[in-house]
Amino acid sequence: MSAVKAHPDLELQLIVSASALLYRFGKVVDLIEQDGFEVSSRIYSIVEGENLTTMAKSVGLGVLELSTQFENLRPDIVLTVADRFETMATAIAASYMNIRVAHTQGGELTGSIDESVRHAITKLSHLHFVSTELSRERVVKMGENPTYVFNTGCPAIDAIADIDLTLMPGFFDQYGGVGHGIDPDKPYLVVLQHPVTTEFGAGFQQINETLQAVRETGMQTVWLWPNVDAGSDDVSKGLRMFRERNRDVPIRFFRNFSVEDYARLINGAACLVGNSSSGIRESAFLGVPSVNIGTRQHARERAANVMDVGHVSADILAAIRHQIEHGKYPSDHLYGDGCSGPRIAQLMAETAVSIQKTMAY
Amino acid sequence: MSAVKAHPDLELQLIVSASALLYRFGKVVDLIEQDGFEVSSRIYSIVEGENLTTMAKSVGLGVLELSTQFENLRPDIVLTVADRFETMATAIAASYMNIRVAHTQGGELTGSIDESVRHAITKLSHLHFVSTELSRERVVKMGENPTYVFNTGCPAIDAIADIDLTLMPGFFDQYGGVGHGIDPDKPYLVVLQHPVTTEFGAGFQQINETLQAVRETGMQTVWLWPNVDAGSDDVSKGLRMFRERNRDVPIRFFRNFSVEDYARLINGAACLVGNSSSGIRESAFLGVPSVNIGTRQHARERAANVMDVGHVSADILAAIRHQIEHGKYPSDHLYGDGCSGPRIAQLMAETAVSIQKTMAY
Amino acid sequence: MSAVKAHPDLELQLIVSASALLYRFGKVVDLIEQDGFEVSSRIYSIVEGENLTTMAKSVGLGVLELSTQFENLRPDIVLTVADRFETMATAIAASYMNIRVAHTQGGELTGSIDESVRHAITKLSHLHFVSTELSRERVVKMGENPTYVFNTGCPAIDAIADIDLTLMPGFFDQYGGVGHGIDPDKPYLVVLQHPVTTEFGAGFQQINETLQAVRETGMQTVWLWPNVDAGSDDVSKGLRMFRERNRDVPIRFFRNFSVEDYARLINGAACLVGNSSSGIRESAFLGVPSVNIGTRQHARERAANVMDVGHVSADILAAIRHQIEHGKYPSDHLYGDGCSGPRIAQLMAETAVSIQKTMAY
Amino acid sequence: MSAVKAHPDLELQLIVSASALLYRFGKVVDLIEQDGFEVSSRIYSIVEGENLTTMAKSVGLGVLELSTQFENLRPDIVLTVADRFETMATAIAASYMNIRVAHTQGGELTGSIDESVRHAITKLSHLHFVSTELSRERVVKMGENPTYVFNTGCPAIDAIADIDLTLMPGFFDQYGGVGHGIDPDKPYLVVLQHPVTTEFGAGFQQINETLQAVRETGMQTVWLWPNVDAGSDDVSKGLRMFRERNRDVPIRFFRNFSVEDYARLINGAACLVGNSSSGIRESAFLGVPSVNIGTRQHARERAANVMDVGHVSADILAAIRHQIEHGKYPSDHLYGDGCSGPRIAQLMAETAVSIQKTMAY
Repeated sequence: MSAVKAHPDLELQLIVSASALLYRFGKVVDLIEQDGFEVSSRIYSIVEGENLTTMAKSVGLGVLELSTQFENLRPDIVLTVADRFETMATAIAASYMNIRVAHTQGGELTGSIDESVRHAITKLSHLHFVSTELSRERVVKMGENPTYVFNTGCPAIDAIADIDLTLMPGFFDQYGGVGHGIDPDKPYLVVLQHPVTTEFGAGFQQINETLQAVRETGMQTVWLWPNVDAGSDDVSKGLRMFRERNRDVPIRFFRNFSVEDYARLINGAACLVGNSSSGIRESAFLGVPSVNIGTRQHARERAANVMDVGHVSADILAAIRHQIEHGKYPSDHLYGDGCSGPRIAQLMAETAVSIQKTMAY
Repeated sequence: MSAVKAHPDLELQLIVSASALLYRFGKVVDLIEQDGFEVSSRIYSIVEGENLTTMAKSVGLGVLELSTQFENLRPDIVLTVADRFETMATAIAASYMNIRVAHTQGGELTGSIDESVRHAITKLSHLHFVSTELSRERVVKMGENPTYVFNTGCPAIDAIADIDLTLMPGFFDQYGGVGHGIDPDKPYLVVLQHPVTTEFGAGFQQINETLQAVRETGMQTVWLWPNVDAGSDDVSKGLRMFRERNRDVPIRFFRNFSVEDYARLINGAACLVGNSSSGIRESAFLGVPSVNIGTRQHARERAANVMDVGHVSADILAAIRHQIEHGKYPSDHLYGDGCSGPRIAQLMAETAVSIQKTMAY
Repeated sequence: MSAVKAHPDLELQLIVSASALLYRFGKVVDLIEQDGFEVSSRIYSIVEGENLTTMAKSVGLGVLELSTQFENLRPDIVLTVADRFETMATAIAASYMNIRVAHTQGGELTGSIDESVRHAITKLSHLHFVSTELSRERVVKMGENPTYVFNTGCPAIDAIADIDLTLMPGFFDQYGGVGHGIDPDKPYLVVLQHPVTTEFGAGFQQINETLQAVRETGMQTVWLWPNVDAGSDDVSKGLRMFRERNRDVPIRFFRNFSVEDYARLINGAACLVGNSSSGIRESAFLGVPSVNIGTRQHARERAANVMDVGHVSADILAAIRHQIEHGKYPSDHLYGDGCSGPRIAQLMAETAVSIQKTMAY
Repeated sequence: MSAVKAHPDLELQLIVSASALLYRFGKVVDLIEQDGFEVSSRIYSIVEGENLTTMAKSVGLGVLELSTQFENLRPDIVLTVADRFETMATAIAASYMNIRVAHTQGGELTGSIDESVRHAITKLSHLHFVSTELSRERVVKMGENPTYVFNTGCPAIDAIADIDLTLMPGFFDQYGGVGHGIDPDKPYLVVLQHPVTTEFGAGFQQINETLQAVRETGMQTVWLWPNVDAGSDDVSKGLRMFRERNRDVPIRFFRNFSVEDYARLINGAACLVGNSSSGIRESAFLGVPSVNIGTRQHARERAANVMDVGHVSADILAAIRHQIEHGKYPSDHLYGDGCSGPRIAQLMAETAVSIQKTMAY
């Protein structure tokens, strides 16, 4: 967003929607405004239920309302990010309305519904700003015109590349949270484990395996609540029940951090645990030891800092211990060098592409 | 639908939605019920406006409501057909809800938004029932698991393969229509020209080129109103204006025909004109001389019966004359042999496929 | 809108939605922009089908999207007009969002769903700008606080009170239309007959009675297509079928006129026929002989210029003949004196009213 | 529902929607099914955000989907209950679709948006089953036809009139909850305080006043989380923050109880505190001492068991102490005698009413 705003030939319009508006997920919109960005429109689009049905319905609601916003804002290009289920709404509304769709993080592999969403969006997109060379090759293999597939690296890396990563005193106070206090001067774990929509129903058991492993480490732990994917209720329920019964275990639960503070948080962690993409992507750049659990990040390219385990408490525990012992890894620029934003902005400003897509084979 | 209904291990649930419910498009739902199929639920999902915005919004509305129907009907497999813009709603609702998606006509190429829709649905689908060998290869190239890509031929061919194609006396009376009477014993043209969504705004001029060419043939003509794609209003406006000013030109306008009667209609035509997929697909099987106009069917595989022209009146006229002179072509089974339905039903009954999709490369 | 725009303490925000955006209903939005008003946002909200189900769904879609617009536009007062089914969406979205609702034309009586809609909106509204003294009494009787019920007269009268009512040469040409030419120098009828939603299914027969009566007058006739209420398809079908079979009857069909031109049109008519509210309200001011058919305007206050008849061809014919013979009536200010707009603007600017409504008894 | 199911001339169709499907509000749908009722369809309709905008949007979503369900279920009468914001969706969908609307609890007075919703629904309803004589008079005064306004009493009373009200051992265990254990043999308070939508933004402060008063009683307390009205997040936030900081205060938080168990719970309470309608209605029948806080129940008829106070901690505390000292009140049948269900079922079975509503004056 900064790069678009700074580019002389581009005007930034910002629509904030879905969980970015919700208190339960940390109201990212407030952080966005604090960073000086003006919000063009807000759309509440999450249908409550946190199950597979409401995940689909939230996309429907998103398409309905984004269409009206695009009708009124009349953008030339719509940029949509990655593979979260809601982003499908953005890609459909824009592509149907003959607005060029630019997409980041295409061509990567994972599990969950994200895997299907990501590739479907690729087939609706006109400009592909991928993060790795292998991703570029995959997008081209899928039949996209190579002229419009650019390995720019991931702008998520930009946000963490040039900042002071020190955890300042009082770091945790501004975010509230519930549970035990965290002493940033002592080793701590960070855990972020989302539901896997294609394994809907298994989230409660899955989170319990992780909880048990973390408890056995005895370490102080920063735990983030899961995202809004189907099955999130199961995960949250597991966390709440654990919390009621284990008041003594030194965990503190948080809703969200700013992008920069999240980087500071995991950079300082003894180990990052769970199934968030940040355990693969941002952690590669930062060299954070990471334990990746289950299928959610299946087949995503990874650097040396990641250990993969299944949903088995003992295995998770062993991997955490191994990673803590190992300590920091060297920084790996697999997902970007920190200069992706300006590249993308420039490419959006200068690339002419037909609204009619054509398969390359 | 007949093959699913007849299969001992399958139960048919039928949701009828979008233009299939609308009088303006011939209320296909009535034909379906006349054929003895029971409708599980009806969903009005078309947002009026016939522009790009409402095309997108209709998808949003479709996703919202199909999710609720799937929640209540709980199907094991959802079958969605081809590439019309509304079918995206079906694919999203089902795939997000961990219901296996079966898709026909994947891997083909065209213009319009259909091109993007078709391939995006492929990336959301678990079972691919394609119509040609080349399509099968394309779907596999796109990264789908070859185990689940079946060249079954197109079930649209089944419906026309085994029927008596004679135009019975009184054929046209049952469908009403407006304009000149059609004498089925004399040569006639059939015209069906839809808007091209990626060329939104050009429909009025495009239809006028075709109208002028048809007028100059002097032949009696059966003309079908366009579908509900964005830009449909422009095409209809062109037709209505022409009609007001050319009462003497021997054209009769119809909303819709049953699948079987449409086959009879084009089978008996001197030439089929426009940009409908039937000018490529069904007409190949029937050997009907076809004049295909513009980009809507761009790059779709075609048999020898098709001549391609641009939106230029003189070229359209020349092509029609050439095709009439040539007369019928031999039947070409490019898109199917008439036995696709039972193959698809059997494959749906017997194929076990994981809900988690995985890219083949 | 002019009065709000002109008021120093008010800012006009304009949301255009529903049939006002649709070509089929004359795209009122274009007239609005031609009059120099800026449109804040456009919302396509009509779900196609023209039946009772889609009428309800259009309200649902309206509520969904108006809420988002109000969230982003943050108005202090929302003004909604009269009793069309879509206006319910406006009243709900605003009142639920603690935005004061101002309502015109409350307290009147009619048939159709409008009767229920109008009174329900009254119960959601904070400021009532009614058109007649009897309406004021009714709104107060319904339990509204008399302090906020103002008999301002109807602003629809303002738009026609001060204009030159001459039908200029070329009047009809700018509106197109289909059918016979109309000679403005010879007597003509104007017909506008909408469906009655509470008599859904009877519209086809009802319009045929009127058509037969009009044919028998032998007079040239300006006929407007019906509005978007449920059952509209039945009425339109009757009109189209009649037209196909009665090319010689001197009727011309139009989609819409500007407010001012509609006043000129009916002012010059020998008789206004149908069930539009303009046959009661605007025609009272203009003194136009009016034949009101059926229950749609049941119990609405009327001036001397109205004759009521049922859906019986012979009765309609007799009433038309009687009214033509009678000729113009004196102007009756029953529904306003032409100065309502500035009154309403001033009241909106100066009236403080609690967001919490309280029943007066 | 029991009475409808038992009536020989009626068939029960049950649509479960809104918060009744959500885990966060106790998943009432599970209780319904445990009671042996079959659910015809489920509709997730709550748009997350718990603010004024999403409250409105949830109504829009409800209207959209209820219309489709009514289209497919084709009920003769739709019964909607009371005045919660979502019930507006039911009344609109049904009345627009020419389905008779029956409404309970019309004619009562309160604060919040409920006040407007209730009376608007009255204006959309055909059959009014009110709970008190004064309510009957009000509904008639509002212009409803007295023939169709029946003082049947409230069926909510039926559910609690004939049951054994003993709190059995293990009562609380089945509902889980979080916080301190409750000993049913010692005196306890019950608190249920919802947000007031017309005072949106004040909920956090309002709940803190109540929390402080309850803490000072020193009594064990059963506290129910608030409903889904706009502002609910503020109230919940207050409760969660209090809980984190006051682990020693003997409160236990619950999501929901079955209707019968809720009656048992408040029947055994030393005092019922908050602004729930049950503090006025059910508590009257049971003779439970009740402290009603703020404007939410403003002007609702009440029996002798209610003390009203503002959002002032000291006043709330004094009122609670006064009520505890007073102890149980005699049962008051103000809102019903426990036989309303069969009356309503019989009236729905036997009453013929025109779909066209007409104002009585």
